[in-house]
Parts: sequence; C-alpha cells; structure tokens
Amino acid sequence: MNDQDYMNLALQLAESTKGQTSPNPMVGSVVVKDGAIIGMGAHLKAGEGHAEVQALNMAGGKAEGATIYVTLEPCSHYGKTPPCAELIIEKKIKRAVIATVDPNPAVSGRGIKRLEQAGIEVITGVCKKEANQLNDVFFHFMKYAVPFVTLKSAITLDGKIATVTGKSKWITSEEARLDVHTYRHTHDAILVGIGTVLADDPSLTTRLPNGGINPIRIVLDRNLRIPLHSKLVAGEEAPTWVFTTEQAPDEKRKELEEHGVTVISIKDFSIRTILQQLGKRGILSVFVEGGAEINGSFLQERAVNQVITYVAPKLFGGKLAPTSIGGEGFQEVEEALALEMIDVSRVGDDVKIISRLKEEN
Amino acid sequence: MNDQDYMNLALQLAESTKGQTSPNPMVGSVVVKDGAIIGMGAHLKAGEGHAEVQALNMAGGKAEGATIYVTLEPCSHYGKTPPCAELIIEKKIKRAVIATVDPNPAVSGRGIKRLEQAGIEVITGVCKKEANQLNDVFFHFMKYAVPFVTLKSAITLDGKIATVTGKSKWITSEEARLDVHTYRHTHDAILVGIGTVLADDPSLTTRLPNGGINPIRIVLDRNLRIPLHSKLVAGEEAPTWVFTTEQAPDEKRKELEEHGVTVISIKDFSIRTILQQLGKRGILSVFVEGGAEINGSFLQERAVNQVITYVAPKLFGGKLAPTSIGGEGFQEVEEALALEMIDVSRVGDDVKIISRLKEEN
Repeated sequence: MNDQDYMNLALQLAESTKGQTSPNPMVGSVVVKDGAIIGMGAHLKAGEGHAEVQALNMAGGKAEGATIYVTLEPCSHYGKTPPCAELIIEKKIKRAVIATVDPNPAVSGRGIKRLEQAGIEVITGVCKKEANQLNDVFFHFMKYAVPFVTLKSAITLDGKIATVTGKSKWITSEEARLDVHTYRHTHDAILVGIGTVLADDPSLTTRLPNGGINPIRIVLDRNLRIPLHSKLVAGEEAPTWVFTTEQAPDEKRKELEEHGVTVISIKDFSIRTILQQLGKRGILSVFVEGGAEINGSFLQERAVNQVITYVAPKLFGGKLAPTSIGGEGFQEVEEALALEMIDVSRVGDDVKIISRLKEEN
Repeated sequence: MNDQDYMNLALQLAESTKGQTSPNPMVGSVVVKDGAIIGMGAHLKAGEGHAEVQALNMAGGKAEGATIYVTLEPCSHYGKTPPCAELIIEKKIKRAVIATVDPNPAVSGRGIKRLEQAGIEVITGVCKKEANQLNDVFFHFMKYAVPFVTLKSAITLDGKIATVTGKSKWITSEEARLDVHTYRHTHDAILVGIGTVLADDPSLTTRLPNGGINPIRIVLDRNLRIPLHSKLVAGEEAPTWVFTTEQAPDEKRKELEEHGVTVISIKDFSIRTILQQLGKRGILSVFVEGGAEINGSFLQERAVNQVITYVAPKLFGGKLAPTSIGGEGFQEVEEALALEMIDVSRVGDDVKIISRLKEEN
C-alpha cells in the first residue's frame, strides 16, 4: 500500500457519503502507522465531525508519529467545529498527505501552511483529479456562489422526448428510470416548469428501493398557476419553493404559503437570477427535469454545467414531435453549448451519456 | 487450439473481406492436420474461388485425412464455381467443422448431407452466432429478397440534426465523419432524397485514407428535379440510380440517361416497392443518409433493420430545429419502432450507438 492506495481508500470513504453532506463537501480520511491502518473516517453530515476528527478519534493514542491521508485540505478556521489542522498538530501526526486544496480562495492553503509551520511533512496533489471530481458541485459553488446545474432528459434515437401526441410513458427502461432517482437523492434541489406540473402532476420525490433523500422541489411559475391540490403543494414529503414574478396574484401566494410552500418573487425572472437566489439559500446543486421550454431557458442563458441524457433504442418519428430543448435555439453550430462526454454507460436497455461543460473539467 | 479457436481464425479471415464479396457472403476456411494449420483461405470476390477452394489449394497434397473448418456450409451445387462439397470429398478430408448452414432454404443442409454420405464426420454450430452476425446482410437478403436497410444519423444531445436555421456543419467530430465512410465502403448502395441533393449537392463517395469501394448512389426523386450539373449526375466515381414516378418529365429522363444515370420509374412510389426493385437488381444492403422526410418514409413503412446514431456532446436548442426522422410519426409509445442496442462505442468526441430491429437478432 502506497500513498495513492491509502488516498484511494479515503476517497472511497468520502464517496460513500454522497447525497448526505451538503452544503459541506464529501471528505474522507485514513490514518496509517507502521504500515497498518489505525484510523478511518468520513464527514457524514453538516454540523457533525470532519473526516480527520473521525479518523483521529479511531486512532486514539496511537496517532503520534502516524501519517494522515485526507482528501481535502484540513480546515484552519473555527467554524461549526474546531479547526482540524490544530487537532492534527495536537495529535503529533508526523506526515500529512492531502489530495486537493480548499477551493475557497479566502482560506485556500492556510491549513497546509499551519501544518508545515508545526513541522509536519505535507504532501499535496495525490489523487488530486479524483478528489476534485468528487466534490465538483461544492467546488463550483465556492467559485461562483450559484448551484451546479444538471439537465436531465430521456430521448429516442431520433431525438424525441414524446410522440407527436405528447405520449412519453415510457421512453426508457425501468432501470434508467430508477437511475434517475439516484440523482434526485444526491441533489439539493430538483427544478421543473409550471408546464410540467400542470401536465404531469409529479411528486418529484426520491423513490429508491432503500428510500433516499428528497430534494427541495422548485417550480418556475410566473403567474402562480400551480394548483393547490397538486402533489407538489398537497404532498408534504419535501419542501416546495415556487419562483414567481411580482405580478402574480397576492391571494394565490397567501394560499400557497398557508400550504407550507415557499413563494419567492423576483423582478428579473431569468435563470441567472433564480440560480443566484438558490445559491443564497444554500442550494449547491439543481437537477433540472423540466420540459422543453424550461430547458430552453437554461440553454439560452448558458446556465448548464452537466447534461445527463438517456438514449432509448426506439424511433418515434414525426416532424412535430417534441425534443428535449425548445425555445428559440442557437442559429449557428459555433454558438452551440459545447460539452465533453465524461461517461457513457449502458443502463438497462438504454445508454446513459454524462457530459459536462468543457470549462468545468 | 480447439475447434472454436480454428473457427475463430476462419471467421477473422472471412471478416477481413468485408465490403468486397457482395452479392456473395463472406466466408473463411482453415485446414488443420496433426495440430498444424496446412491451409487458410477466404472468398475474396464474387466469381472467384470459394474459401474452401483457397484453403484446400494451399494445403495441396497434405489435405488427405485433415480437418476443414468453414464458416458457412459448403455449397453442393454448380454455380459460377464447382461445388465445394465435392472438392472436399475428392481431397479425402476426414472431418468438416461448419459454423452455420446455408440460409437459402432451397439448398440448406444439402452440402452437409453430401459430405456425410461420403463418410466425412461433420460437426455444425461451432461459433454459429458469430457466423450468422458476420453475414447478417446476406442472410437477410436470402430470407426476404430485399436489402438490409441501415439508417444513419448524427444528432446533438438534444436530438437535433441541425440548428433552427438548418446549419449542420459539423455536428460530429472528424473521427465520426470518417467512420461513416467505412459504412459507405461496406454497403452496396447509399440512398438519399432529392431534398438532400438540392440542399447539399453531395458526392456520396467513399473517402477513406486508403481509398475504398464506392456504393451505388440512389436518389428518390418523384419529379426528376435532380440537376444535370449535380455531383451525382456529373461525377462519374460511381453509378447513380434515380427512382421516380411515371409522371416525371420524359425529356429529363432522357437527359439523365444520356449522362449515364439509371432512371427507374415505379407506379407505387413506396419504400417497400423501391426495396424490392433494389433486391431484384442485386443490392443486398442500403445505407440511408437522407434527410428527415426520407427517414420518415422508411420509419412509417417500418423498413429499417439497423440504426446507426452518432450522438455529439452539443446542445443546439430550438423548438423548430429539425430532428433525424420527420414525417407524421407514431402517435403512441407502443407503436414506436423498437430496437435493441447491439453496440455502443466512443468515436472521437462522440458516441456511436448501433441498434437493430429486435426480430433481426
């Protein structure tokens, strides 16, 4: 076992917490002494102990002279918990191996500096790429203060999301539809347009065989047309936030609020503004599952970081059958949002393609 | 090396002739004696020696008492060449291992029977699936007497084949565009609609780094609107056949024929009729590269055997941007042409998905 092996283990510990640490990053840590693992840990939930604390607790008195592996630079400031850098020093760790630095420019490098000042040998950059990918959403938020946007769609081989008569149940296989729920589980919020609510009355909850965390449900609804009896209003499995304009009827707003819905009025009803509002409210990731028009708005404002496309081996045909992204569209090929495929896999009968904005990588 | 290993070698020999044997199948053969290969061969071109003949020629006098491996049942009838079954008997082969039987119901099993009557031990079904896949096009033709139809398209992740203004250069990467030419090389014919000819003036030739075979170029053109100066008429790299109706102007037909174009008038201008006509003219495979309307006609008549889709990591957007299959389309999800993905691979920046009609497998 070398540094990379131990860091891979720490990364696995971190990854196992996917979906439960937001707004904090996923972090894993391993403590090794004389070739044996003496401590392991991961940050499980915001407000609870950091990965280093968990791993050092497990190591107990044996930590002195050991090497600590941690997937993200230890913090050096007093937040909800005391700074991990101080704990590492206090436990007399001899060597610290760190995958990647803190993405927050205000504190980046400070934890490392503190450790070095205390005479600890610090190695950085081991499995850096993997560590950055693991917390891409968190890093994006730290950099831009807006959530990481993932746009999901399910299309036929001829690019349709429904038949000419609007039928779409079901384009993809059961396995692909289940796979979508793992994304709901790992996102802070799920977003649709009012058109989808009126057409399908979805519940937008996470339905995995072993449960799962429900994302906050967000509806873009300029005129507050969302029905009080809709599942998003009447169902209480998860919070529902409705973005609307100041022109929306006051009475409807009050009724919705009485039903526990959070109504947010904004002047400039643009995707950018909505994302900024979500960022301010601590939403780090948004899963967009909403019709062609909503998707068109996200594309027009180039507010898409990741695209998840399920392609089903079917042909619907039809010049007028709808596609996943409507709106006006770009006129030139050069204007198109250029992505990079980062993963292609088979899911049931379908193919899943994960693509990202080139600049995100 | 066991039977399967030798048959795999024979299959490789056969596969290496892809694109050059039509209207004959690809066939490979290996002759083995005392654990050593004493002959190898493949059918290279219609009219030339069959695989068994080539392999037995190489074996020469050593063939007596040997085992012959052949990917397709040896023929038992006098065609352009004498029957291979007789040659195998004459050469005193002891054992014949055959992957799959002749798909022609009129002669299927006869070659095997002839060998058995001569006292040769015959084993069939070794690597049968692979042998059937290798000659799927040939087998399809033997069964239905119409060509195997492959529909090709290149789409964005949001299902578009062009921007709202019709721009499509280039959706896919250079590697994907080159890959398309390998399909032109291996198909008997390439088919487009007159719309594509008028819009793009394509040459529809095979442009591979080391050359390649040009398919016959087929245009569906009800009113003979194809320009005399178009590349398909003026360019003489490959034959051009134009399907039209009896209402098309006689004068234009004569002009086209003077330019070397074959004009075929049909009463019932349907895809089925056109495919039957192509079958009668010895076309075993058709590569359809023609616009949304032509593709829509093939889909509406369910005359599609294989679909090759290149998906590019781009988003064009646009409610009115075109998709690969137009026409009226199916109204219900259940009516959709249901395919099965048989291969998914990365080609350059894109994904290539090969799907087939379920009943073809």
